[in-house]
Amino acid sequence: MPTGPDARVSALQDLLDDAGLDAILVTKDASIAYLSGFWGTQLERFFGVVVRRDGATLIAPSLDRESVNAAPGTLERELYSAGESNGLPELFARLEGATRVGVEEDHLVHYRGDALREAGFELVPAAGTMMHLREVKDAEEVDRVRAACAHIAVAYDELWASLKVGDSEQETNARVDYLLKRRGAREVHAHILFGAHSADSHGTPDARTLAAGDVVVADIAAQFDGYWGDITRCATAGAPGDWAQAAWNVVHEAYVAAVAASRPGVPARDVDAAQRSIVGAATDIGQVLHGAGHAIGNEIHEPPFLIPSSPATLRAGMIFTIEPGIYNSNVGGLRLEDDVLVGADGPVLLSHLPLELRVL
Amino acid sequence: MPTGPDARVSALQDLLDDAGLDAILVTKDASIAYLSGFWGTQLERFFGVVVRRDGATLIAPSLDRESVNAAPGTLERELYSAGESNGLPELFARLEGATRVGVEEDHLVHYRGDALREAGFELVPAAGTMMHLREVKDAEEVDRVRAACAHIAVAYDELWASLKVGDSEQETNARVDYLLKRRGAREVHAHILFGAHSADSHGTPDARTLAAGDVVVADIAAQFDGYWGDITRCATAGAPGDWAQAAWNVVHEAYVAAVAASRPGVPARDVDAAQRSIVGAATDIGQVLHGAGHAIGNEIHEPPFLIPSSPATLRAGMIFTIEPGIYNSNVGGLRLEDDVLVGADGPVLLSHLPLELRVL
Repeated sequence: MPTGPDARVSALQDLLDDAGLDAILVTKDASIAYLSGFWGTQLERFFGVVVRRDGATLIAPSLDRESVNAAPGTLERELYSAGESNGLPELFARLEGATRVGVEEDHLVHYRGDALREAGFELVPAAGTMMHLREVKDAEEVDRVRAACAHIAVAYDELWASLKVGDSEQETNARVDYLLKRRGAREVHAHILFGAHSADSHGTPDARTLAAGDVVVADIAAQFDGYWGDITRCATAGAPGDWAQAAWNVVHEAYVAAVAASRPGVPARDVDAAQRSIVGAATDIGQVLHGAGHAIGNEIHEPPFLIPSSPATLRAGMIFTIEPGIYNSNVGGLRLEDDVLVGADGPVLLSHLPLELRVL
Repeated sequence: MPTGPDARVSALQDLLDDAGLDAILVTKDASIAYLSGFWGTQLERFFGVVVRRDGATLIAPSLDRESVNAAPGTLERELYSAGESNGLPELFARLEGATRVGVEEDHLVHYRGDALREAGFELVPAAGTMMHLREVKDAEEVDRVRAACAHIAVAYDELWASLKVGDSEQETNARVDYLLKRRGAREVHAHILFGAHSADSHGTPDARTLAAGDVVVADIAAQFDGYWGDITRCATAGAPGDWAQAAWNVVHEAYVAAVAASRPGVPARDVDAAQRSIVGAATDIGQVLHGAGHAIGNEIHEPPFLIPSSPATLRAGMIFTIEPGIYNSNVGGLRLEDDVLVGADGPVLLSHLPLELRVL
């Protein structure tokens, strides 16, 4: 668990031999921030960190020079003018002498990969090598996820205190977003849906208004100081109906089982199975649409993922969302989500909100 | 200018022969929305539209089934369970019989490209083929960009009416974001910086507060109904100092020249040169850090880009931001930005705000 950008660069250099790599190129915003302290906005421009045995370089457009130069890491900086260069000549120069180059194969775009090959480099998938470091969080990172969750808990207090029948999804989401941005969130994903719309777990908040009897599914994620928190709680407008109460009981039971399974050495697919066996059995209530959760840290969704096809095993220091849900297109979906540290001695909750089906 | 998802699928099918393609796979959120009407949130999961001569298919995780099925396009849907599949077997099945497959080489991630090659497909860069359609907007698309700009203009009225010395960047950006989200924006990029911080054109709004004499650079973009508007205006807290007035005069002159150059048949690099020759000559005021602008539509930044290295030529129906800026680390940066339709008879402004250096 190297702490701070420079120690992380050293730790990644130490992994090059075992991975059979001459160098590694990381391109994800979150990986670049992890190694340099610089958070960029990529859009069409090239950003990357090259780590070689003899050094490391942050390559970025000169447009970002102020933030690049202010970043805490002491790695070299290489700025290119985006009007004249696409950044690749500068990248190739920093990779000179390397043959086998690791890349984040789940992020590097196709044409840049092909350009690297045409320049003579052999590309090796290395997202796993980078995540091997990023997935185990140090004490400061754990504190930052905990702090993000504390901000989100305040947003819930405000949400439950103010939400009333007749409010629109759009207005409700905008209000939560505003509250968190005012508190300093760099990014917010407020995703609060009402009634049957909540069965579409990726639905877009719209003009529909809260009606008496509706369920409310509030999934609120926000990034503070480079780290995300991600929490989901549910409510009903008025006393819960039979479906909502039964659905809540099932997801609560599944949540307890999946949290309890979040221990070092447990296969990721077993954490998923712990919740899936419970939610999946409640076919009279609804469907299972997703896994038990995902790792969280510099990114809102990071590998490993808690899904049946995952080959990963939990390690102490990983942080996951645990978020079983059940969905029924006619009535809605309920989901319960907290952020859980895989502690050496067992699961540690980083988010603290009452485990209740809130009645509005 | 095909209108509506189905006509666009047909138009793309008509381009396959000329591009020497058996099929095309588009993966950008905006390209998928253009062909299907469905807006997804990709994160780690695979989304794509396959267009073959004999049909087209939207492939998405079953998690998104409600929004996928509600989308207006009539192309086929193929849903996969993300817990069991990474979506590639479903993709390969839909490409069966194809050899040369076009891909969006500036979006497709490296490992999916390699997986397609290993499955026997020959990949051909086809982002340009897709953009050939997307870059020329029909009347409805032009109206949507105009409508997004009108929402942003309201946000400016509110911003200038309320902003005062002592307000923080964070609070100011959060307020503008809130105002636009309440009006129905799906995404907002509010980027309002004060004083010397505005010289970092990609800087992150922070706790600094507006001081008397500061410049204010307000770059506000928002997406409504799938289309972005993007406007920048500047102000000073109190009467403008000599630097701010001189900088504003230069960017205003450069803006007028670049807008005037935005006509069909003009090389993109010439639109850039029109502003660069003016801003670049004012070396006593500051530096040029970026090009004249970028195309805008379903994405906030789309190709073509108005930069010196661009090979593109303007076509009637394209929409660009025109946004010259000048930057000086000691004082700040000023930028002036509007959204301009390349009309058959010349440039048409889609955003309507006074061209003034506002005094607060």
